[in-house]
Amino acid sequence: MAMDVISVIRTKRDRGELTDEQIDWVIDAYTRGEVADEQMSALAMAILLNGMNRREIARWTAAMIASGERMDFSSLSRPTADKHSTGGVGDKITLPLAPLVAACGAAVPQLSGRGLGHTGGTLDKLESVPGWRALLSNEEMLSVLDTTGAVICAAGDGLAPADKKLYALRDVTGTVEAIPLIASSIMSKKIAEGTGSLVLDVKVGSGAFMKTIEDARELASTMVGLGTDHGVKTVALLTDMSTPLGLTAGNALEVRESVEVLAGGGPADVVELTIALAREMLDAAGIRDADPAKALADGSAMDVWRRMVAAQGGDPDAQLPVAREQHVVKAPSSGVLTRLDAYDIGVAAWRLGAGRARKEDPVQAGAGVEMHAKPGDEVTEGQPLLTLHTDTPDRFEYALQSLEGAFDIGSSTDFTATPVVLERIA
Amino acid sequence: MAMDVISVIRTKRDRGELTDEQIDWVIDAYTRGEVADEQMSALAMAILLNGMNRREIARWTAAMIASGERMDFSSLSRPTADKHSTGGVGDKITLPLAPLVAACGAAVPQLSGRGLGHTGGTLDKLESVPGWRALLSNEEMLSVLDTTGAVICAAGDGLAPADKKLYALRDVTGTVEAIPLIASSIMSKKIAEGTGSLVLDVKVGSGAFMKTIEDARELASTMVGLGTDHGVKTVALLTDMSTPLGLTAGNALEVRESVEVLAGGGPADVVELTIALAREMLDAAGIRDADPAKALADGSAMDVWRRMVAAQGGDPDAQLPVAREQHVVKAPSSGVLTRLDAYDIGVAAWRLGAGRARKEDPVQAGAGVEMHAKPGDEVTEGQPLLTLHTDTPDRFEYALQSLEGAFDIGSSTDFTATPVVLERIA
Repeated sequence: MAMDVISVIRTKRDRGELTDEQIDWVIDAYTRGEVADEQMSALAMAILLNGMNRREIARWTAAMIASGERMDFSSLSRPTADKHSTGGVGDKITLPLAPLVAACGAAVPQLSGRGLGHTGGTLDKLESVPGWRALLSNEEMLSVLDTTGAVICAAGDGLAPADKKLYALRDVTGTVEAIPLIASSIMSKKIAEGTGSLVLDVKVGSGAFMKTIEDARELASTMVGLGTDHGVKTVALLTDMSTPLGLTAGNALEVRESVEVLAGGGPADVVELTIALAREMLDAAGIRDADPAKALADGSAMDVWRRMVAAQGGDPDAQLPVAREQHVVKAPSSGVLTRLDAYDIGVAAWRLGAGRARKEDPVQAGAGVEMHAKPGDEVTEGQPLLTLHTDTPDRFEYALQSLEGAFDIGSSTDFTATPVVLERIA
Repeated sequence: MAMDVISVIRTKRDRGELTDEQIDWVIDAYTRGEVADEQMSALAMAILLNGMNRREIARWTAAMIASGERMDFSSLSRPTADKHSTGGVGDKITLPLAPLVAACGAAVPQLSGRGLGHTGGTLDKLESVPGWRALLSNEEMLSVLDTTGAVICAAGDGLAPADKKLYALRDVTGTVEAIPLIASSIMSKKIAEGTGSLVLDVKVGSGAFMKTIEDARELASTMVGLGTDHGVKTVALLTDMSTPLGLTAGNALEVRESVEVLAGGGPADVVELTIALAREMLDAAGIRDADPAKALADGSAMDVWRRMVAAQGGDPDAQLPVAREQHVVKAPSSGVLTRLDAYDIGVAAWRLGAGRARKEDPVQAGAGVEMHAKPGDEVTEGQPLLTLHTDTPDRFEYALQSLEGAFDIGSSTDFTATPVVLERIA
């Protein structure tokens, strides 16, 4: 069958369309190990450079779903609503959002990932809560979901194993940034998971995979199409990732900020996006009469958070880890902070120990970047602008390198505010 | 260093130019196994689709040369002249050419390959001569070259090992057909081999890798540029491969035809191309007073052939192997043979057992296709047009499938003769 994979590669290399049979065969043969990694990476590069049409992407996604098991939430009494973010800096939204939407009446199964590169991972963040466990069996997962209304845990090995293998390959072969492959990777897991509705938070800007609104729009509409084709009510918001979300980037730092939001406080942009996504999720799940702003204010979202954390072994009252060392970056001049770059802050947090370079690396719970001003804020020369946190102070210098050019201070006429939510695609 | 290879892949993926440092590093790291096959195949696909400029190709070639040893023919009393063909169907030219050019005063080191797919390999052909050995040490090779004037043998493992590894990878990942990679693969071996001059026979047409004259021209001028940059006097002829060369495709069948040419006979196209390439090689080597046509007629080329074969253990007087079974394809109508497709004949010969699907497969010495007419010849309904030869008659049906549509019989007004030599590039 060695001839077959070469003909599949050649088809896409020569800008042809892959047939349904070619797609089904290559995904299955790759999962079984009959197609080798070096053959799949050549195909992935050809797909990245020559694209796939909607039919090819739909079939590719279906083949990845078919490579593993499918879950079923139909036994739950509530409608399910899931959210996926394409990943950004300071993007802790899942943490307040899942309990908030559960408090409003939906069941929220959040199968989440870990951070890689400059973007953080939801599981890494929650693991800074003492005792909390990310790994649940399918039965445990359903039980937490049923009793608390929300669960955030690692996706099991059984869902879309073809995607798991292909994602690891793309990560080391420079083939991550292909819209058909990103869309099918995300949607195969979400569809296999069995959610009834899905809201996509597609990040745009320096700290996101999608740097331009055009690319983000293409990714979002591709994913909305895939979800709809598979009977999942799917909506996407394009949201700004030119600057970090909130005032923290790092694991325990972001949990603390999330708890502030659940307590009715927290940074305005995090609250705004959390409520906007909650409204979309509730709407997609058919729940029209709930008020997420009220559920934050009256403590009902916080109640779900505490029960959800406790159901997975975590102590919601425990002190969160704090990094051993801090370094303050001061404002070099007075004026308006006109720019604070998401990518640079993300790289700094990563270098301080909040993220990992390779999947098997550990992360530091307390490491990260705390921001004392956001774009649009007035700052005074010498005031603290950023506080860097790490357990390993020899990382400060390397982190500071990534912050050269990370911000601009100017006059208010140099600053144009960017909305948090840029577009909605349904 | 995993970050580095991804940045190299991304540079080419995003249509950038690779720096000298990136090229040197990636070739060296791949040869040492630090860059994995799946990473190199993604890079090869990006190069195939996005190209390399002349500087990049030159550096890539130099890095592959630097991955291994270089040979030195400066101790020989004669000037060296080498020839390389990009491969075709019935292309046995090396067999009469090497002894012919040696008979005219040059030293001809022909480090040759084996067949893969529908094109034959020089070593497979010569191995049909009983006793003949392809594998020589560097010392044996120089000794045969010095005493007989010509040697045809396998390239040692020491020459351009990066190319050896990369070629095997390209073969299984659909990344063979990239002009920068073909050019650098051929030229790295030829330059490392140390020849003083080189004539390239770049095939064009259905039976060749290059299907169009434009692609062949680009490949030829890329290779001529690489040779010239490395101080090797290099000339290319673009030659026709829309129909097979000569009247045979297969191992022993082609040796027999080559011996006919050395005996002063043989098919006109084989004689014409052999003499044209001999003139170019002698000219490139600075030998102006020799007459290759005379050296064929007076038996001096045949004398070198006999000594060369014997020096490598072969018996030039031995009976050549004959396949156990024959099947005749008859002309279905009378008229002029207006087309006889090189690719289809090559695939038929391969399927009959003359070639291999994988490197480790054996070949049949006697298998192949004998042609009883060439394009332009008159044929009569029912006359033998092709004789198929194999030791394994169950292959006939599969071979006959590839011959459906392999030829047309029409009137003389439907036929336009194609010259053997199409263009010269120097």
